[in-house]
Amino acid sequence: MKERNSYQHSRKLLCDLLRGFYDKGWVAGTGGGICTVVKKNEVLMAPTGVHKECVLPQDLFVVDDQTSRVLRSPQNPSLRLTECNTIFCLLIREKDAGAVMHSHALSAVLAGDLGSRADCVVFESLEMLKGLRDCSNFDKHSVPVIENTAYEPELVSQIEKAIRQPDFDSSYCILVRDHGAYIWGSDLWETKRHAEVYHFLFEATTARSKRQLA
Amino acid sequence: MKERNSYQHSRKLLCDLLRGFYDKGWVAGTGGGICTVVKKNEVLMAPTGVHKECVLPQDLFVVDDQTSRVLRSPQNPSLRLTECNTIFCLLIREKDAGAVMHSHALSAVLAGDLGSRADCVVFESLEMLKGLRDCSNFDKHSVPVIENTAYEPELVSQIEKAIRQPDFDSSYCILVRDHGAYIWGSDLWETKRHAEVYHFLFEATTARSKRQLA
Amino acid sequence: MKERNSYQHSRKLLCDLLRGFYDKGWVAGTGGGICTVVKKNEVLMAPTGVHKECVLPQDLFVVDDQTSRVLRSPQNPSLRLTECNTIFCLLIREKDAGAVMHSHALSAVLAGDLGSRADCVVFESLEMLKGLRDCSNFDKHSVPVIENTAYEPELVSQIEKAIRQPDFDSSYCILVRDHGAYIWGSDLWETKRHAEVYHFLFEATTARSKRQLA
Amino acid sequence: MKERNSYQHSRKLLCDLLRGFYDKGWVAGTGGGICTVVKKNEVLMAPTGVHKECVLPQDLFVVDDQTSRVLRSPQNPSLRLTECNTIFCLLIREKDAGAVMHSHALSAVLAGDLGSRADCVVFESLEMLKGLRDCSNFDKHSVPVIENTAYEPELVSQIEKAIRQPDFDSSYCILVRDHGAYIWGSDLWETKRHAEVYHFLFEATTARSKRQLA
Repeated sequence: MKERNSYQHSRKLLCDLLRGFYDKGWVAGTGGGICTVVKKNEVLMAPTGVHKECVLPQDLFVVDDQTSRVLRSPQNPSLRLTECNTIFCLLIREKDAGAVMHSHALSAVLAGDLGSRADCVVFESLEMLKGLRDCSNFDKHSVPVIENTAYEPELVSQIEKAIRQPDFDSSYCILVRDHGAYIWGSDLWETKRHAEVYHFLFEATTARSKRQLA
Repeated sequence: MKERNSYQHSRKLLCDLLRGFYDKGWVAGTGGGICTVVKKNEVLMAPTGVHKECVLPQDLFVVDDQTSRVLRSPQNPSLRLTECNTIFCLLIREKDAGAVMHSHALSAVLAGDLGSRADCVVFESLEMLKGLRDCSNFDKHSVPVIENTAYEPELVSQIEKAIRQPDFDSSYCILVRDHGAYIWGSDLWETKRHAEVYHFLFEATTARSKRQLA
Repeated sequence: MKERNSYQHSRKLLCDLLRGFYDKGWVAGTGGGICTVVKKNEVLMAPTGVHKECVLPQDLFVVDDQTSRVLRSPQNPSLRLTECNTIFCLLIREKDAGAVMHSHALSAVLAGDLGSRADCVVFESLEMLKGLRDCSNFDKHSVPVIENTAYEPELVSQIEKAIRQPDFDSSYCILVRDHGAYIWGSDLWETKRHAEVYHFLFEATTARSKRQLA
Repeated sequence: MKERNSYQHSRKLLCDLLRGFYDKGWVAGTGGGICTVVKKNEVLMAPTGVHKECVLPQDLFVVDDQTSRVLRSPQNPSLRLTECNTIFCLLIREKDAGAVMHSHALSAVLAGDLGSRADCVVFESLEMLKGLRDCSNFDKHSVPVIENTAYEPELVSQIEKAIRQPDFDSSYCILVRDHGAYIWGSDLWETKRHAEVYHFLFEATTARSKRQLA
């Protein structure tokens, strides 16, 4: 297995960011996940069903994003590929994502609740919007909210539909009701930035919504 | 005292997890606790009345879960066996738990409040439910809420009654009103996962409940 | 300056706990403080006006609790004795405290608000009460709330009055409205335990109070 | 580049504090910033558009606060000067600030909301006010709230107007609606103290406001 240095760097960075996400409460209870493109048609993916803060560089799968097939498995035979695999590959192919993170944050669930009578949540009047690529702080930024399903692969058709809607062209996030969010960027670092921005938007909008209800 | 390597590993892991629980605010003020089965009829238990983030591998008691009697005490004579002893042993015997944690988290107390007119709380419409063994995200997951008592051993009869109710067959948690929760799994790692999932359920359900009240 | 090993130990422990309090948000903005008795009539006190997470063992004052006079100052001449000095000495003399911490936590301020039409707050129906020395979880535990003053030494007369009231005999805490709390114990470790318990009581009681208001 | 030791010290301290701000959630998503005067007309500034917890001592710009022009750029050519540059220099010149931090904290946004029908927020009845230079805990402390703009340099004219108002003479903070806050002090340490105090004031006042609404 001759991998270049950049591979090793990506493997380590992916694990470091995942640990950071755990510390923020976004991937508790073995939930959530992350992947990054390392070269054409090769995607590193964290395994499923493991404590995300404990994932090591050698625990990652290499997947072909065109076929969603595993190219290389980690040596540890107990590790299983994430159920997010097909969703991750879809976002890489269709949205040109260089990395995707999947959040199980409570703030994502509560933000999804805000769209209870619609299929989207609109974030506005927040400087933090500028932290999203090509987004202005005066934009009304729409994020789709899709319905949860019993199995993650069943989310694919809703995601395909959502990302084709022009309203969501400039969104780097899909909220899944009762579940969490998929957030992506051009690489791991932009994905981290987008993740921090979106979780801020979730919290801010939920806090303002509560004030209006009170 | 010839203990195998796996013993040492379990002692260290138990202390590491306990420190993690402290960092999350689940075992503050010397409250809460943890135990794990290490071999047939031998259970490692953290002592009571000590700052839980300071517990060391050599501070643990070894207890026989069939009799709840101490097999081996730590060398430090000031350490006392946890009052949860009989409850821990009961859950090991009756629910086949391989490890049990006892949480004093505020979120557990507030979740217990939700069941104020009933003897259970139902968690539903949350993906995080999948983090519980054999639980689906579309399940209505019932957790018993029992009344607090002056002394922890007095909780035993209520717990015996609760775990015999078919409604709670697939629950790995008992909420104790005004007090906290007992959460278990097949081993320390599953218990950690279940603990993270249940505390998420406590927080999410409390947050949603507040929204309805507002 | 021939100090015994136990002195050095107390100096280090005091600083370690103070750093832990900072991490919990109890002594932000250079606020709050801590002291501990090291031997008869000798009390170690952290300085005022400094970032509390940066206090070093050599930065502490040694004070005579009978006279509130400084016995030994730290070598660094820019360090000043805490304004809490007379309050700390009072609690050591009158309540037999072996250590006292002063919290500027938001939860202490919000708990003080709960007593807005009375001079005390009552904590009840919480297992965590057991974390207070000689307190049962079925007790109604009263903590005095005194009014804030322009200068900390001016709190002394109110504190003297409060600790003489039989209602507060078994309290290890005085809430100062709009300000924070003084919390003590027989030594640094009990004071830490009491601090964690009281802050839990503050948060729990505030959360339950909000629910009733909603 | 012959810089004195104090320069190196300031560079390191600035980065350490910035990492601390990140841990508190004040500069997430690459937002926020910090600068400090190192000698007459020389100001160290963190770059924009980077993850603030990753900024290194060699990544800082040196700017002339009289002209807002860059005196020395970091070697890494990808780093860009912060858009806050002209605001930072204005506060250094007009308010004699020795350091300024720019917060993107949610609590700053929610505090800005409190002034929704006015151009200021008043903080009062909080001991923590004493943590501000020359401020008493019985003062009513007014902080200006200005409107957000599309680009940060466009905030300058509003800030100029606000700091000329006598009402805000003793304020070390400007809230920017939907955006965050600028907070300053005589040096990095006072700025840190003021930042911790103001964020406490934001949280406390927001919490008390919610209680009144409920």
